[in-house]
Amino acid sequence: MSELSVNSYFDNQVKSIALENAEGVSTVGVMAVGEYEFGTSQREYMTVVSGLLTVKLPGSEDWVEIKKGETFIVEANQSFGVKVSEQTAYHCRYE
Amino acid sequence: MSELSVNSYFDNQVKSIALENAEGVSTVGVMAVGEYEFGTSQREYMTVVSGLLTVKLPGSEDWVEIKKGETFIVEANQSFGVKVSEQTAYHCRYE
Repeated sequence: MSELSVNSYFDNQVKSIALENAEGVSTVGVMAVGEYEFGTSQREYMTVVSGLLTVKLPGSEDWVEIKKGETFIVEANQSFGVKVSEQTAYHCRYE
Repeated sequence: MSELSVNSYFDNQVKSIALENAEGVSTVGVMAVGEYEFGTSQREYMTVVSGLLTVKLPGSEDWVEIKKGETFIVEANQSFGVKVSEQTAYHCRYE
């Protein structure tokens, strides 16, 4: 069994741990306060576990608040903006 | 602002990332397949984010399945058993 892998992004302002189970491949992670532009290589189902994300989805000009327990979906090969005003934990499932 | 801290337990079979926000102090983490005995120093609210935990709470002889989205609570200075049959992500809030 392989070891749990931890990844860091944006100069260690975002860190995640990967997992694979019956639900598929996913990560849980934490974002520090800041503003980020993410790119997708697969469809992503992103759920806020604790905290708050303010998100600008591909093709949208509007920033939308995603609260604890809420999920947004981004298709593959897109980019999306995220503003983080407090440390926020997320779960990201890949398809 | 301090860097996001990653902790490892049980010979790297459990890893977590700490955060603090309006909800308080918490961690998100992943448990590899295995069986673990955890001890608490504060009250813990443990929620399954992805996967499944089978838990024996303090003072109980029964193993109970905690599914995705479900939460169990353990008081401070207790120990509890966890069986993990697939990689499982959790959120643990401390009080």
